[in-house]
Amino acid sequence: MRDAAVPAGRRSTRGRPDTSYLNIVNVTSTAFGFRVTAVDGAARRGELTTPHGVVQTPAFMPVGTQGAVKAITHADLERIGAELVLGNTYHLCLRPGDALIARRGGLHRFIGWPHPILTDSGGYQVFSLAGRRTVSEEGVAFRSHLDGSPQQLTPERAADIQARLGSDIAMVLDECGANTGDEARARDAMERTLRWARRGRRRFLALRDGAGAADGVAVTNPGQAQFGIVQGSVSRALREESAAATVAIGFEAYAIGGLSVGEPPDVMYEVVGYTAPRLPADRVRYLMGVGTPLDLVEAVARGVDLFDCVLPTRNARNGQLFTRAGRLNIKNARYAEDDRPVDEECACYTCRHASRAYLRHLFLAGEIGAASLNTLHNLHFYLDTMRRIRNAIVFKSFETFRAAFREAYTARPRD
Amino acid sequence: MRDAAVPAGRRSTRGRPDTSYLNIVNVTSTAFGFRVTAVDGAARRGELTTPHGVVQTPAFMPVGTQGAVKAITHADLERIGAELVLGNTYHLCLRPGDALIARRGGLHRFIGWPHPILTDSGGYQVFSLAGRRTVSEEGVAFRSHLDGSPQQLTPERAADIQARLGSDIAMVLDECGANTGDEARARDAMERTLRWARRGRRRFLALRDGAGAADGVAVTNPGQAQFGIVQGSVSRALREESAAATVAIGFEAYAIGGLSVGEPPDVMYEVVGYTAPRLPADRVRYLMGVGTPLDLVEAVARGVDLFDCVLPTRNARNGQLFTRAGRLNIKNARYAEDDRPVDEECACYTCRHASRAYLRHLFLAGEIGAASLNTLHNLHFYLDTMRRIRNAIVFKSFETFRAAFREAYTARPRD
Repeated sequence: MRDAAVPAGRRSTRGRPDTSYLNIVNVTSTAFGFRVTAVDGAARRGELTTPHGVVQTPAFMPVGTQGAVKAITHADLERIGAELVLGNTYHLCLRPGDALIARRGGLHRFIGWPHPILTDSGGYQVFSLAGRRTVSEEGVAFRSHLDGSPQQLTPERAADIQARLGSDIAMVLDECGANTGDEARARDAMERTLRWARRGRRRFLALRDGAGAADGVAVTNPGQAQFGIVQGSVSRALREESAAATVAIGFEAYAIGGLSVGEPPDVMYEVVGYTAPRLPADRVRYLMGVGTPLDLVEAVARGVDLFDCVLPTRNARNGQLFTRAGRLNIKNARYAEDDRPVDEECACYTCRHASRAYLRHLFLAGEIGAASLNTLHNLHFYLDTMRRIRNAIVFKSFETFRAAFREAYTARPRD
Repeated sequence: MRDAAVPAGRRSTRGRPDTSYLNIVNVTSTAFGFRVTAVDGAARRGELTTPHGVVQTPAFMPVGTQGAVKAITHADLERIGAELVLGNTYHLCLRPGDALIARRGGLHRFIGWPHPILTDSGGYQVFSLAGRRTVSEEGVAFRSHLDGSPQQLTPERAADIQARLGSDIAMVLDECGANTGDEARARDAMERTLRWARRGRRRFLALRDGAGAADGVAVTNPGQAQFGIVQGSVSRALREESAAATVAIGFEAYAIGGLSVGEPPDVMYEVVGYTAPRLPADRVRYLMGVGTPLDLVEAVARGVDLFDCVLPTRNARNGQLFTRAGRLNIKNARYAEDDRPVDEECACYTCRHASRAYLRHLFLAGEIGAASLNTLHNLHFYLDTMRRIRNAIVFKSFETFRAAFREAYTARPRD
């Protein structure tokens, strides 16, 4: 059945003269492509091609909210093997502003990162502004967290901002919310997400075809791709409907949104398990905002190729470090005289040069270097986990890796 | 006259049976040495040998207050060519504690910096604790800025702490104060500094000879050297008396303290000008806590070999950047759309990868990376200035360099 059903979203737009673009289901950016090079069960090893280079998948994207991955330099990112970073549209459009970035030649040139960049739509941050935003069919009205100024984010504006930023991958605006268990509300959000996806795709294609220039929108990366986002909370029916209808609109690739927002891990794994196979096998699959190291392994096992999450960077700044044996809280007094590295099997700069005792001292002393060293380690751990996942898929040993990883990672709470 | 006068300090200790160490004027650590390899006027090009490696002089020491140069990694420090860093005894003895560091094998091993380290005596920080410290002949009683606990720093304890830290160069405890112009007070401080220097040297030699072990003081770097400090405010007579008496005690080398504490630059240059030649020509000369890039050039012109200062690192964190054309305040709105590097002649990582517009954005956005990139640039500028100074001395073009540097650096306020 999968991929064969004529989706509701597709049906509802048939016959409209001005929606012919919706029939170009397989339109792709010429500079954009994805190729699966090996499979092991549902897990896929692939290569994602973008205007700014190739990304080996499954891949984890460090989050560079304001145009920088917090506490480390781009050179550090390159050294630990990051191939793709995420920029937050919400933050960048408020400061320094997407128009200023466009005048600098786009985000890559502005921040000096010549490798692939994905930008989110800004929706996730706007929806998190509880009490400061109002949702309507048109979009979301909100107040800036910086100066309280009134702002509006619509599907069209999200596409415009990302055209100015010139990321390699843009995301459509979707309606994000907590998984409250209210199915009617989840259906409303899913259906609005579909309507917004059609508007966002139309705008994206108009910008690509040059029509955007008339509105003064500078397109700084003509090879930009746009991903659609599947919503539908934790309902299998909604997720399947959303997947089919989003695929019918036709994006370069697809993301699974609205997860890791409070539901238990097993529920998330289940949703990923029935949603991922509904997305085209020849397109990269992106699970947004996920997750723990174990989440990455479990989602890859269900066919996901791409991830982003603030966990490794944010936890690093709070002194929480990821290791093969679970999490380690560097503040703990037990590390005061511990001369071992954070993770004795880790080859990162931090583990080769700093003891737990030194890292604890730097953290308690409030040294900026604590954030840098901890971030280097956590990101290295995440990227190394992805490397091990990719190797395991190639060698058809992913299930063995997955079982061993889970056993080591969950052996005991460590803090 | 210089170096020939029998100093007052020497005379006053003659004949005491228990002060025979004072006659060993030229005692040196076997692992420690200094060799002048070229001179140009009073400026000297040299090599300082320590148990942890050789330092090319004139040299600037980045300040690593709490065991880390703020906002950058040791690898970054190595990449920009830092050969020697300074650690603050005051901070390290309070947190994580010198005993803990000794149990880790000393400061080098604890912080993972295998290159030379100089530690100050802790005196400067303690004297800056206005209202929280009491000076007596015995030493300085003070309260910790961390928890208010009562502490005492004596010449002996300063030597003990630094023996535990195991720095390559230890400093004697001196009495530091503002240059108030009160000559009687300046004489008192200078004379107490001499008495403390004798006690500090005696303790240092006892520790080196193994007597310290009886008091449970672990000596983590047997090759440690100890520098004496010349005081005397802005009085030529006091400085000359202090220099002669300090040299008579006999240290591996000598520092000029008590400058850059509020007096005008020209007064400081004058004091350095008549103090430096009073120090032995075959020993490295260290000007403590100095200074601006221009101060470094002017002090080298007067025979100084070694510097430390928080200016490049602290100003970096405040958004103030050093360039060949003076200081640049990255917060300034004029840089919002400036795609040029901070200093168009600079080869540092920051100038090769980041525009003023991006650095301004990072600073205003409160990104940790702003501190890192700014620190990398400022330290690179300082260390590059030292490299240019060293080359100029070798090529006998130091005066030309000095004039050109001053002209470019002071051409116009830039902020």
